[in-house]
Amino acid sequence: MDPPSTDFHIRYAIKDDMHHILNLIKELAIYEKELQSVEATEEKLLTTLGFNSQQPGPAYAKALLLFSRDDEAQAYIIPSNLASPAGIALYFHNYSTWRAAPGIWLEDLFVREKYRGRGYGTALITALAREVERINGGRLEWSVLKWNTPSINFYESENIGAKCMSEWQTMRVDGDQLKKLASKGPAVL
Amino acid sequence: MDPPSTDFHIRYAIKDDMHHILNLIKELAIYEKELQSVEATEEKLLTTLGFNSQQPGPAYAKALLLFSRDDEAQAYIIPSNLASPAGIALYFHNYSTWRAAPGIWLEDLFVREKYRGRGYGTALITALAREVERINGGRLEWSVLKWNTPSINFYESENIGAKCMSEWQTMRVDGDQLKKLASKGPAVL
Repeated sequence: MDPPSTDFHIRYAIKDDMHHILNLIKELAIYEKELQSVEATEEKLLTTLGFNSQQPGPAYAKALLLFSRDDEAQAYIIPSNLASPAGIALYFHNYSTWRAAPGIWLEDLFVREKYRGRGYGTALITALAREVERINGGRLEWSVLKWNTPSINFYESENIGAKCMSEWQTMRVDGDQLKKLASKGPAVL
Repeated sequence: MDPPSTDFHIRYAIKDDMHHILNLIKELAIYEKELQSVEATEEKLLTTLGFNSQQPGPAYAKALLLFSRDDEAQAYIIPSNLASPAGIALYFHNYSTWRAAPGIWLEDLFVREKYRGRGYGTALITALAREVERINGGRLEWSVLKWNTPSINFYESENIGAKCMSEWQTMRVDGDQLKKLASKGPAVL
């Protein structure tokens, strides 16, 4: 049951949200001073994101959108697709071999500036924790820049209860190195 | 074209490999002195792993298996499913929002002891780099324990060309904390 006191609601993104999703991605990139790194387009998002409406083709990631009831003409009515979301959680499924169970990786979390300080970020994280349980998953993970100690402190606090996987180091191959590595790859039968 | 000089071949795991996959997972856990952490069973793997044969239901992860030609009765013949693999790469798709493109996360890489030093681990990594290109993806990622400097040095060498994402910290919520967090989660519409 939806807690009656919230001033927001959260739903899965649908295809008609694509314009909003791209805007939110760009706003997050502007916040991180990395707008020039955004190669995403509505078309690319449409062919790679999954939606509730189960379109054919691969769904590499999904998004939850948070809408503030303030923005809706009438409170407690499901908004039209034209309502602009206050925040987004973009995520994909990961996997724990030892558990033989899926988990969720939160790739991007963004709340628009005017909506900050209302607990919307926490609401999106807790909604994903619930989603992990729904899929019989074992864990919720994400990464944060190491210099961002206020965020790390918040994630480690009782509100969230996350722990730093500080003994692990993530490695990445991309760009020209990836092309070079792939060119050495044996055929997979 | 398959390079003619290899003494192995790599193929996607199929359902009949489940017994081997579970054995390889357990052998890796023994190597890491963590056998007691393995909750995976053949049944759990069957309902969560994806196979080439496109079974219905979610596919949270997939596996490549490497077979040594030494072990086959006749070289250059595709082995029966009963042949025991020399190594495994268990992986899932991740997602880059800025690229709006998938990538691959290598969750587990394991080569049985008697097959080490033949380049089989590298072969599995390069096969996955090729798989990233096949899905029009942007990057191949994995994590490694920080104390494992020989592996990190190898991954950073020209052979692989990976870089350390050392500015990022991974956070995780699981177990009782996950239950607690999920219980606060708002309904998702």
